[in-house]
Amino acid sequence: MKAAIMGYGTIGSGVAKVLETNKDILAERIGEPLELKYILDLRDFPGDPNEKCFVKDYKEIVKDKDVKIVVETMGGVEPAFTFVKAMLEAGKSVTTSNKALVADKGAELMQIAEKHNVNFVFEAAVGGGIPIIRTLTACLTGDVIEEIDAICNGTTNYMLTNMEQFGSDYAEILAEAQSLGYAEKDPTADVEGFDSCRKIAILTSLITGKNVDFNDIPTEGISKISATDFKYAKAMGRSIKLIARSVKVGDKYACRVAPYLVKPENMLYHVSGVMNAVSVKGNMLGESMYYGAGAGALPTASAVVGDMVFLAKNVDKYVKIGWTSEKYQLSDPTQEQFRYFVRATASQSNIENEFENVEYANLDLDDEVGFITSEMTEREFNERIAALGGIISVIRLA
Amino acid sequence: MKAAIMGYGTIGSGVAKVLETNKDILAERIGEPLELKYILDLRDFPGDPNEKCFVKDYKEIVKDKDVKIVVETMGGVEPAFTFVKAMLEAGKSVTTSNKALVADKGAELMQIAEKHNVNFVFEAAVGGGIPIIRTLTACLTGDVIEEIDAICNGTTNYMLTNMEQFGSDYAEILAEAQSLGYAEKDPTADVEGFDSCRKIAILTSLITGKNVDFNDIPTEGISKISATDFKYAKAMGRSIKLIARSVKVGDKYACRVAPYLVKPENMLYHVSGVMNAVSVKGNMLGESMYYGAGAGALPTASAVVGDMVFLAKNVDKYVKIGWTSEKYQLSDPTQEQFRYFVRATASQSNIENEFENVEYANLDLDDEVGFITSEMTEREFNERIAALGGIISVIRLA
Repeated sequence: MKAAIMGYGTIGSGVAKVLETNKDILAERIGEPLELKYILDLRDFPGDPNEKCFVKDYKEIVKDKDVKIVVETMGGVEPAFTFVKAMLEAGKSVTTSNKALVADKGAELMQIAEKHNVNFVFEAAVGGGIPIIRTLTACLTGDVIEEIDAICNGTTNYMLTNMEQFGSDYAEILAEAQSLGYAEKDPTADVEGFDSCRKIAILTSLITGKNVDFNDIPTEGISKISATDFKYAKAMGRSIKLIARSVKVGDKYACRVAPYLVKPENMLYHVSGVMNAVSVKGNMLGESMYYGAGAGALPTASAVVGDMVFLAKNVDKYVKIGWTSEKYQLSDPTQEQFRYFVRATASQSNIENEFENVEYANLDLDDEVGFITSEMTEREFNERIAALGGIISVIRLA
Repeated sequence: MKAAIMGYGTIGSGVAKVLETNKDILAERIGEPLELKYILDLRDFPGDPNEKCFVKDYKEIVKDKDVKIVVETMGGVEPAFTFVKAMLEAGKSVTTSNKALVADKGAELMQIAEKHNVNFVFEAAVGGGIPIIRTLTACLTGDVIEEIDAICNGTTNYMLTNMEQFGSDYAEILAEAQSLGYAEKDPTADVEGFDSCRKIAILTSLITGKNVDFNDIPTEGISKISATDFKYAKAMGRSIKLIARSVKVGDKYACRVAPYLVKPENMLYHVSGVMNAVSVKGNMLGESMYYGAGAGALPTASAVVGDMVFLAKNVDKYVKIGWTSEKYQLSDPTQEQFRYFVRATASQSNIENEFENVEYANLDLDDEVGFITSEMTEREFNERIAALGGIISVIRLA
C-alpha cells in the first residue's frame, strides 16, 4: 500500500515518524506494509531520512497509480483544495488535518470522493488526537446528539489555565505563550475563537448531515478575559473555559463559541493546559466525554495515521459519512438561554430593578458589582444590559 | 432490515426503546428502516408495545432468513453461547452486551463469524455507553497502545465515591447500594473485581490480537477498603479508585485489577458515582480518556444500537477485528513496579530498616503507622512486607 504526504511541516513530518516507528503493527492491522512513496514540499530537506521521497510537483503524485492514500498536512484552503481535489479525482483517498480546508470545502470534497468511489476523511482536523469525528460518525450512531461542548483549542486552554493558576492578565500570558511557541505571532485565529468556530461547524455538519457555515456562528474569544474575571470565577468556585458549543433547541441546533464559567461537576472544568476534550450528550446515552491532546505533532499525526489505516482497509469502497452541501440553517442564537455573570458599575438598586433574582458575586471592589442573572434568552439579556448600562464584562454560565 | 432481541430484561427492553425512539434517524443512517421482528424471552409480557414480537424458541429466529441482525442481552455464558453460535452459523450478525460471554467465548465466536462472513460485535460489553471497543479497534489504529487504565464498574465506583464523600465504611455503603439497586444481592462479581477483570481481559485481547484468559489476571476488589483508608487518602490529597489496568512492560502486557490511590492530576480522579472512564495511552498519541455511563439500560442500549447500525451497514461483509484464539501469555505480574501505601503496626525504625526512603502519611492513630514506599517490583515489595510483619492494609499508587 503506497502513500504520499503533501506538506512536510510539523504534522507532515510527524506522520512520517509515526509510519516509521509503528510500521510493524500498521502492516499487521492493514494486512500489508504501508509505504511512504512521495513527500510533496517546495522546501529542501537535505539529510532527511525520507530524502528520496521528495517531489515539488503534486502532479507527480496524481499520475502515479500505485499511490492509493494521500495525506494533506499543508494547511490553508489553497492550494490544498486544488491538490486534494486532484488526488480524489485520480482515485486516491485523502486524509487531512487541515480544519480550514474541511470547514470551508468539506461537503464539496466529500461529494467528489463519493463520485470517484474513494474516501475523504479528517479525524485530525478536530481535536487532534481525540477520535471525535469517528466517535460521532461511527460509534454514537444509536443516538440523537443533543449537545456538544468542546474545548478544542490548545492555545487558549493553555492561556486560560495559566491565567487561573498564576493570576496573570491576558497580555502577559499571551506573550509567554508566544515565547514558548504555544501561541502564534499573530494569535488571532486562536484567541478570537475562529479556530474553535471552524471545528464546531465541522462537528455540527456531521451531526446534522448538512453544511454548517462557520460564518453563521456567533464567536467570542478570550482576549477580553482578565485576571479580575478569574478572581470572580474563583469566588464562585468556577473556572473559565473557551467552549465551542452546539445544542439542539427544539428541532434545530444553535452554535456558539464563547468563554463560559464552568463548575467542577462538569468534566470540562478539569481539562487543563494544552489538553482538549469534547463532551457529547446523546438522547439515550446521556453524558460522555472524549479527552486528549488537541494539538502537537505526534498526537495529530497519530490521528492522521489512524485515518490511513481506515483508508487502507476501505480502498475502492466509499464509506458514507453523510455531509451534504445543503446549507444547514442554525437556530436563532438570540433565542438561546443562559445564566449570565455580569460585572457592572451600576448600583445594586438599578441592577435589581433591571434583573430580578440576581445572585451577587462579591469581591468588594470599589468601582464595580458582580452578579449572576437568572436564566433568560440572549435577546432579553441584551435588552436588559443595554437598559442597565455601565457594563464592564459578561461571561455566560455553563 | 429485520432484527431480533434475545433477552428482554433491562438492556433488551432498553434496546427496543432506543429503536422506537430514534427510528427516524436510524433509518436515515442505515438507509432503510431497522425493524424489530422477534423478541426471545421465556417470560410473558402482556400489554408490552412489542407484544406481537415475542417467541420462546430461538430456532424460530434462526430459521427466518429475513433476520440479519440479532441482539443478545440475556447475560451469562449459557444458553447465550449456544444461541449466538446458531445465529452466526445461520448467517446473521450478532451484537451482545454480555461481557461474560465475550470474555469466555469472544475469540471463538469471532472465528465463527468470520467463517460465515457475518460480524460479531460487543461495544456494550465494556464500559456501557463508552465506545471504547471501536475506539481501540477502529480509531487509535495508528498507535501502539502502551497502557489502559479503566474505571469500568459502576457499582464499585458508586460505593467508593460515597465512602469518600460521607466517610462511611464498606459494609454500610454496600447495604445502601443494594437498597438503591446499584449493587446486587450477591455483589461478589462487582465488589471483588471479577466484572472489571473480564472487561480488561477483553480490552487486552483486542490490543494484542490474542486471547487473554481472565483467570490469569491478579484481581483484588474493594471489600477490604475502609473509612480509615479514605482518611489517609484525603491526607495524601488522593482518592481511591478500582482500576482495571493493562500496561506494556517490555514487549508484553501485564494486567491487574486493584484499588489504587489516584492523584487529582489523573483524570480518573474526577470520575465519580456510577460513571465510568477508560484512559488509554498510545506511543504517539500520549494520554487520552473516554468517559460516560458505564451501565444503565439506555446508555448500554445506545451502544448496542450503535452496533446494530454498524452491522446493518456491513451485512454480508466480515470486518476483521483481530482477536484470535491463540492464548496470550501475560507478563509476570510480580515484575510490575509500583509505589505502595502501607498501614502497619510496626515501629518506624523497623519500617525504615526494611524500606529505605519511605514517606509517612500521618493520621496520628495510636496503633498504626501509614507510609508510602519508593518504587519497587511486586516481588520485592512482598518479600519486604513479609519480613516487616504487622501489615494492616496495602494500596498501590497510580
